[in-house]
Amino acid sequence: MTRLFADRMGCVHRSFVREILKVTEDPEIISFAGGLPNPRYFPVQEVAKAAQKVLSECGEAALQYSTTEGYLPLREMIAERYAKRGVKTKASEILITNGSQQGLDLLSKVFLNKGDGVILERPTYLAAIQSFGFFEPKFHSIPLQEDGVDPAALEKALLKDDAKLFYSVPNFQNPTGITYSENKLRAVAEKLSDCSTVFIEDNPYGDLRFMGEDRPSMKNFLGESAVLLGSFSKIVAPGVRLGWVCACEEIMEKLIIAKQASDLHSNYLCQRIIHQYLKDNDIERHIAKIRKAYKEQRDFMVQTMQETFPEGVSFTRPEGGMFLWVTLPEGMSSLDLFHRAIKEKVAFVPGLAFYADGGGSNTMRLNFSNSDNERIFEGITRLGKVIKEDAS
Amino acid sequence: MTRLFADRMGCVHRSFVREILKVTEDPEIISFAGGLPNPRYFPVQEVAKAAQKVLSECGEAALQYSTTEGYLPLREMIAERYAKRGVKTKASEILITNGSQQGLDLLSKVFLNKGDGVILERPTYLAAIQSFGFFEPKFHSIPLQEDGVDPAALEKALLKDDAKLFYSVPNFQNPTGITYSENKLRAVAEKLSDCSTVFIEDNPYGDLRFMGEDRPSMKNFLGESAVLLGSFSKIVAPGVRLGWVCACEEIMEKLIIAKQASDLHSNYLCQRIIHQYLKDNDIERHIAKIRKAYKEQRDFMVQTMQETFPEGVSFTRPEGGMFLWVTLPEGMSSLDLFHRAIKEKVAFVPGLAFYADGGGSNTMRLNFSNSDNERIFEGITRLGKVIKEDAS
Repeated sequence: MTRLFADRMGCVHRSFVREILKVTEDPEIISFAGGLPNPRYFPVQEVAKAAQKVLSECGEAALQYSTTEGYLPLREMIAERYAKRGVKTKASEILITNGSQQGLDLLSKVFLNKGDGVILERPTYLAAIQSFGFFEPKFHSIPLQEDGVDPAALEKALLKDDAKLFYSVPNFQNPTGITYSENKLRAVAEKLSDCSTVFIEDNPYGDLRFMGEDRPSMKNFLGESAVLLGSFSKIVAPGVRLGWVCACEEIMEKLIIAKQASDLHSNYLCQRIIHQYLKDNDIERHIAKIRKAYKEQRDFMVQTMQETFPEGVSFTRPEGGMFLWVTLPEGMSSLDLFHRAIKEKVAFVPGLAFYADGGGSNTMRLNFSNSDNERIFEGITRLGKVIKEDAS
Repeated sequence: MTRLFADRMGCVHRSFVREILKVTEDPEIISFAGGLPNPRYFPVQEVAKAAQKVLSECGEAALQYSTTEGYLPLREMIAERYAKRGVKTKASEILITNGSQQGLDLLSKVFLNKGDGVILERPTYLAAIQSFGFFEPKFHSIPLQEDGVDPAALEKALLKDDAKLFYSVPNFQNPTGITYSENKLRAVAEKLSDCSTVFIEDNPYGDLRFMGEDRPSMKNFLGESAVLLGSFSKIVAPGVRLGWVCACEEIMEKLIIAKQASDLHSNYLCQRIIHQYLKDNDIERHIAKIRKAYKEQRDFMVQTMQETFPEGVSFTRPEGGMFLWVTLPEGMSSLDLFHRAIKEKVAFVPGLAFYADGGGSNTMRLNFSNSDNERIFEGITRLGKVIKEDAS
């Protein structure tokens, strides 16, 4: 059978993080490994009401096949929310997808020949590496500084002239929690303005800013050569698997063909339910509630780390999102640490998983959105102990 | 921008059928063009009850991220239903997908290098041509006879030794309504037994048999080299976009990696809802109701066609499913007929859409599942008139 598999299957592997998550299924383990939003803030009752309304008022329509582009009133709502944040777009530039993850798959299908260049932040979102990886590109990883990528390194990568896509998570990046400064955004836009590389702005966490000020979307600087990915996963709930791509009509036309061939259209019942939910509820108020909760969790985790982690360990202080990034002293292996931490019933993701080109062996990602203070205190204390043992 | 798109975008186009469906959106048009199940038989209230139960009993879990493979109890139910029909499998061999359409995309990802061979029935399901087309294979189309493909032609295609996949819809095929006889299934299995080509049995209509006897699954003859695709679209509702792939563990391991990269997992809320629906209701009784209705619609359409269509027009008499296939006299163009029919406010799909290699210009597909008798009578009568005008 093996001889039958496509060549690309040699380049892609089961997600390391998913394998780790299996280890952490033991309920006794305090896990900072997953990338889960806090289910306490899922609007369960409101979604139930919306589901009831949709099924009683237009059940037959909601259960039938629908258009590839997605439910128009939902796409209109998404376009209106962009407008409120100063991003000009329209419903015809919005395609509903199965989470923003599917956006990556569709963009890969539309743009990537084998060997084409894809610029990545270093480190970057693991599932993006996997998604692009299926189309066998060449990755160019650009070091991430504390306020965005290094523009000089970006310029060098762009000179290679094969980069069709530049994939970025500019707000509260997964895995690092880093956000681009406006200066950095402008510097990046300037470098990109001379070339045809498409900038993919993946922004699942953008709404989860709990301090500091919102940054402009790169679409404001780059226009049609910026493609935006968004998601309901972090602001409503991930189980409905609904996200979107926002792209100019020329790209959209191709994305629709790719979407059609991939799965005809996204779950229509849930599109209708989420639309009804958004119509009947104040999503901004709901998001404010999530933000407040995540800020408390983040603050408490930072505070506990400051009190518990030994000197020589540094970590980011994200202004939003769901993740913290820890850098251990040079030479310390977070993978070794992981195995010892599991014995102490605490888990995280070793940072090397987020490097397309190797490296990051002394880094790790911690999720703060899915743990209450009690578990944060207990877990971080245990982790601090294991790090200290390792460092001594 | 155009120079940026991947080469594959030159080979794939917007679905012809989808374009046709746009023309037929005019509510005055009686359309036999779509491939829609009859929404009258969607279990709307039962699904609403299931949704309410899931959201009130385990709402937080149902709205959270879940496993790539799909909800285990749902996969177990699917495996049990296969067992009842004499197909041995287990939950670990079932992957939940976004309709069976996504199964085609995942199988393409896992198996196809550019230029690999894919054997198709001639004609075949249009969206399969599109889905495989994204991976730039070579298509080998095998003529479909009235009880399945021509085994001699299959043997010739297999001799080319590049065919990794053979895609088939053995029961009430889309577009022709043709079903393989058991003899034909055995003959095909024999041809395949000497080679490593994987047989994809796409079976969305298998449950909708309203006359004759069920045929065995090719998995019973081919074992691990048969991959089965199934769907809830025709037996429950398509709007939830839930289907599955049934494959041996070696292939499944690869499919899971591809699914992970494509969209992490399928809509979990709807997986839970459909599971609850199946638990609380007798699906076999529900399917019997659909079968009875479709049989009446099919019988009435056949009868009206017999009375209305001129001599020299032949058509299939499907024993199940949703489609009839009409062959016009040699030299008559169903595409020309389509444009004249639209003026008379009746629509169908010209058959050429279903040929990967051209041909079929005098054929057309008619859907009987989504029209009541009144519309069937009026539409077929109009269509008969247009054909007669054309033939004279």
